[in-house]
Amino acid sequence: MMELNVTDSPVGSPPPGKEQQAAGVGILLQISMLVLSFVLGHVLRRKKFYYLPEASASLLIGLIVGVLANISNTENSIRAWFNFHEEFFFLFLLPPIIFQSGFSLAPKPFFSNFGAIVTFAILGTFVASIVTGILVYLGGLTFLMYRLPLVECLMFGALISATDPVTVLSIFQELGTDMNLYALVFGESVLNDAMAISLYRTMSSVRSHASSGQNFFMIVVRFLETFVGSMSSGVGVGFTSALLFKYAGLDIDNLQNLECCLFVLFPYFSYMLAEGLGLSGIVSILFTGIVMKHYTFSNLSENSQRFATAFFHLISSLAETFVFIYMGFDIAMEQHSWSHVGFIFFSILFIGVARAANVFGCAYLVNLVRPAHRQIPLKHQKALWYSGLRGAMAFALALQSIHELPEGHGQTIFTATTAIVVLTVLLIGGSTGTMLESLEVVGDGYNGPIGESYEGNNGYVAPSYDEGTSSGSRLKMKLKEFHKSTTSFTALDKNYLTPFFTSQNDDEEDFGEPIQDARRGGFRGHG
Amino acid sequence: MMELNVTDSPVGSPPPGKEQQAAGVGILLQISMLVLSFVLGHVLRRKKFYYLPEASASLLIGLIVGVLANISNTENSIRAWFNFHEEFFFLFLLPPIIFQSGFSLAPKPFFSNFGAIVTFAILGTFVASIVTGILVYLGGLTFLMYRLPLVECLMFGALISATDPVTVLSIFQELGTDMNLYALVFGESVLNDAMAISLYRTMSSVRSHASSGQNFFMIVVRFLETFVGSMSSGVGVGFTSALLFKYAGLDIDNLQNLECCLFVLFPYFSYMLAEGLGLSGIVSILFTGIVMKHYTFSNLSENSQRFATAFFHLISSLAETFVFIYMGFDIAMEQHSWSHVGFIFFSILFIGVARAANVFGCAYLVNLVRPAHRQIPLKHQKALWYSGLRGAMAFALALQSIHELPEGHGQTIFTATTAIVVLTVLLIGGSTGTMLESLEVVGDGYNGPIGESYEGNNGYVAPSYDEGTSSGSRLKMKLKEFHKSTTSFTALDKNYLTPFFTSQNDDEEDFGEPIQDARRGGFRGHG
Repeated sequence: MMELNVTDSPVGSPPPGKEQQAAGVGILLQISMLVLSFVLGHVLRRKKFYYLPEASASLLIGLIVGVLANISNTENSIRAWFNFHEEFFFLFLLPPIIFQSGFSLAPKPFFSNFGAIVTFAILGTFVASIVTGILVYLGGLTFLMYRLPLVECLMFGALISATDPVTVLSIFQELGTDMNLYALVFGESVLNDAMAISLYRTMSSVRSHASSGQNFFMIVVRFLETFVGSMSSGVGVGFTSALLFKYAGLDIDNLQNLECCLFVLFPYFSYMLAEGLGLSGIVSILFTGIVMKHYTFSNLSENSQRFATAFFHLISSLAETFVFIYMGFDIAMEQHSWSHVGFIFFSILFIGVARAANVFGCAYLVNLVRPAHRQIPLKHQKALWYSGLRGAMAFALALQSIHELPEGHGQTIFTATTAIVVLTVLLIGGSTGTMLESLEVVGDGYNGPIGESYEGNNGYVAPSYDEGTSSGSRLKMKLKEFHKSTTSFTALDKNYLTPFFTSQNDDEEDFGEPIQDARRGGFRGHG
Repeated sequence: MMELNVTDSPVGSPPPGKEQQAAGVGILLQISMLVLSFVLGHVLRRKKFYYLPEASASLLIGLIVGVLANISNTENSIRAWFNFHEEFFFLFLLPPIIFQSGFSLAPKPFFSNFGAIVTFAILGTFVASIVTGILVYLGGLTFLMYRLPLVECLMFGALISATDPVTVLSIFQELGTDMNLYALVFGESVLNDAMAISLYRTMSSVRSHASSGQNFFMIVVRFLETFVGSMSSGVGVGFTSALLFKYAGLDIDNLQNLECCLFVLFPYFSYMLAEGLGLSGIVSILFTGIVMKHYTFSNLSENSQRFATAFFHLISSLAETFVFIYMGFDIAMEQHSWSHVGFIFFSILFIGVARAANVFGCAYLVNLVRPAHRQIPLKHQKALWYSGLRGAMAFALALQSIHELPEGHGQTIFTATTAIVVLTVLLIGGSTGTMLESLEVVGDGYNGPIGESYEGNNGYVAPSYDEGTSSGSRLKMKLKEFHKSTTSFTALDKNYLTPFFTSQNDDEEDFGEPIQDARRGGFRGHG
C-alpha cells in the first residue's frame, strides 16, 4: 500500500551532504592548524625561543600542511576551502585585525609621537612606494630584471610597501623596548597599510582608466579623495557611536548583551560603509577604532569595557593567526613562475633601499623640528628600518594583481611578493630579538611611566640636527607649524571633544594603561 | 622617457573593486538591519509589548526590506549577498546558536527533567515526524492536497518537526514561568533540532540510495549510527577540552587570551569533526556545549569564565537575529509556488495534530513513571504543545530539499514550510504572553529556588495517572528502570566525572545560577 519512492539524486551537482562533508573536513583541518599554532606559539614563547615567533610558526605550519596536501592527492572539494580568497580576506579577516590595531593604540605615546608617525606612514610610505617602483622600472630598462610598465612597477611598489606589525610587535612586547620606539613602529606599520592600499587602488584605477590617467594632478586628487573620505567616514562613525552610547542609557546591568552587540557591530559598519561608498574600508575602520577607544569606550559599562577589550583581542588574534596559516597554505598550493629569480633578488634589494629612504629621510625631517631632547636616535631609526617585514596585506594585494594585470605580469609580481613575505617573516621575524639586543634598545623605559620623553633614558642627539639648521630653515619653520598643530589637537581633544562625546570627564588617566594591557587583552577582573 | 602603460581592465569579470563595493553595500544593509532589530527589540521589550517579540520583529524587518529590494531594482551583485545559502547557515550561523543552547542549559532543572526531555525530544519528535509524514501522504492519496511520495512526505514530516526555541523562551524569561516548564520547553526544542536533522538526513539518504533503502531495519540502524556517533564525538571533544584545560595550566592572568582562543575553537572543532565524519554537527556541538559547560568551564580562570559566557551569548544573539532577518529577506526574494494552497492549509492542521500526539502522548508516558507530586500538569502540556513554532532549522532544511527533490516537489515543500514559519513565528510568537497568562503559568516559581519540584507551587495531578496504572504496568516497569538510570547518572557525575574532569570539586553550587544569568549573558563583574 505504501511505496517508498527511491530515486537517484539529481545529476550534475554533488549531493549537499557530500559538499558539506568536504567543507567540514576543510574547516576541521584549519581549526586544527589554528590550535596547533596557538599551542606551538605558546610553548616557544614560554621557552623564550625568539627565533620562531608565532606568526612564523603559523606560516610554517600552513606551508608544511600545504605541501603535504599537494603531495597526497587531497580532494579538490576540500582543497577549495583553502584557496586564499582575497574577498574573504578583505571582508572578514582584515577588518578585525585593523580595528584592533586602532583600538589597542595606547593614545598617550601615540599622540605624543603623532607628527613623527604620520610623517613615516604617509610621506614615508609614499616615498618608499615611488622609490621601489622607479627602481624596479629602471631595473627593467637596464635588463637587470623582468621589465614591467611603469604604472605596474608603481603598483608593485605600493603593495610591497605595506609592512606587517604582528610579528615584530609581539617580540617588542616580549622583550620590552622603549615606549617611543614601540609607538613609532606600531603607528607606522598600522597607518602604512592604509596608505599602501590607497596608493595601490589609485595606481590600479590609473591603469584601467585610459582617459584620465595621464594627469598626475588627478592622481593626487583621487588619492586624497579616497584617503580623506575614508578617514572622515571612519571618524564620523566613531563619533556617532560615542553619542549613541552616551545617551542610550545601555550601561545598566541586564542590558550588557545588547550594549556589546551594538558595540561590536559599529566597526564593521564603518568598514562596509566605506567600501560601499567606494572608499577604503581599512582606513575607515582604523580611525573608527581609534575614535571608539578614545571616546565611545568610556561610555560603556565597566563589564562591557572589559568584555569589549577581550573580545576584539580574541577575534583579532584568531584572524591574525589564521591569515598566516592561510597564506602559508596558499603559497604551497598556488602556481608560481620561478623564471624570474632576478626579479625577486633585485626586488628585495630595492625594497631595502626604499625603506631606508623612507625611514632615514623622514627621521631627518622629524628631527629638524623636535627639540634636542626628543630627537629620534639613530639606533631607533635602524630598528625601525629593520622592522619592515611584509605580511598578509602585501600578499592579498599581490593576489589581486594577478587578476588585474595581463600577460603574466601579475604572476611575476605575485611570486616575488610571496618570496619576500616568506623571507622577511622568517628571517626578520626570527632575528628581531637579536637585532633589538645588538642595538641595545631592549628593556629601556618599557616598564617606566608611559608617555615619558627620551630625556633620561637615552639622550642621543642625532648628528643630522646640526646639518638641518643650515640647509632647511624655511622647511623647518613649516614643520614646526605642523608640530604645533598636533599639539593644539591635544588641547582641542581635552577641552571640547572628550567632554562632548563621553559621559565621564575624569577618566583621562585610564588611557595611560601600559601597552601590555592594551595589546594582550587586559580582560582583568577588578575583584 | 617614462611611459604610463594604461590599458583597459581585463574583459570578462568585473574589476575586483566593483565586486567588493557590492559586497560592502550588501553587508552594510545587513548590519543596519541587525542594529535596527536590536534597537527595535529593546524598545518593544522595554514597553512590555509582547505581541511582537524580537524574532518576529527581525523577520518582519527582513521581509519588508526584501519586498522593497524586490520593487526597487537592486543590483544583482548586491542581492547575491542576501540569498540564503544553506551552507552558510549550517556552517557558520547554526553552530553558535546550538552551542549556546547546550552551553546555557541550567543543569539542575535540565537533569532533573532529563527523562521527560529525552522522551519528548527523541520519541516525541520521531512520533511527530511520522504522524505528519503519514497524514500528508494520506492527504495526498485522498486528493485533499498535492500528492508526494511517502519518503518525501516523511522528509517533510522530519524537517517541519524542528521547533525553534528562540522566541518562546525569550518571552518565558520576560514574563517568568515555572522552572520545570521552562526546562521542558527549552530542552525539548534544543534536542529536537538535532533529532529532526538526523531524521531528515536519514530519510534523504534512504531516498537517494536505491539498493539499501527498502529495509526498514537498515534505516533505524543508520539513524542510530548518526545520532549515537554524533553524540559520542561531541561528548568526546567536550571531555578532551576539559582535560586539556585542567592540565595545561592556562588559567593564569596573562594567558587569558590564549585560554579564550582555545576555548572558543573547541565547539567549532566538534561541529566540523562530526560533519567531516559524515555525522551530524548539530548533535555533536550540542553535547559538546553541555559537557563544556558542566566540566571544562570550571577549569577556566574566573575572568575567562565571565568572558566565555558573554562571548557565546553575544555570538549566538547575533547569529539568531541575523537568521531571522536573513530568512525574512529570502522569503521575500525566493520563487514560491502558491498553486498548492491546500497543501499549506492541511500541513498546518496536520502539524498541530502531530504535535499533540507528541506532547500529550509523551506526557502520558512520563507521568506513568513520575511520582504523584512530580506529574506534568495538563496546563504545562498545553503550554508545551502551543510553544512549537517553526524557525530557521525547518526553513534551511526545506531550502535544501529544493535541490534534492525533483519535479517541483521541493518547491512545494519549501513554500509550505515558509508559510508555516512566518505564520507560527508571528502568531504563536505574538500570542505566547497571552497564552501563558490564560493558562496561569506566569510568574510561579520563576524567581524561587532552582530545581524545586512541583510540590507547593502547583500540586496538579494529571488524570492520566490513574488510567496509566491499569493499562500499562509492564511498560511502566521499563520506564521506571529508565528513570532510575537517569538518577544514577547524577550519582556517576558527582562521584566520578566531576572529580576527574574538573579541578575544583566544591563549585557544584555554581551551576545553580538562575536562568536569567545563563540565558541573558551573566557577564557580571564581582567588584
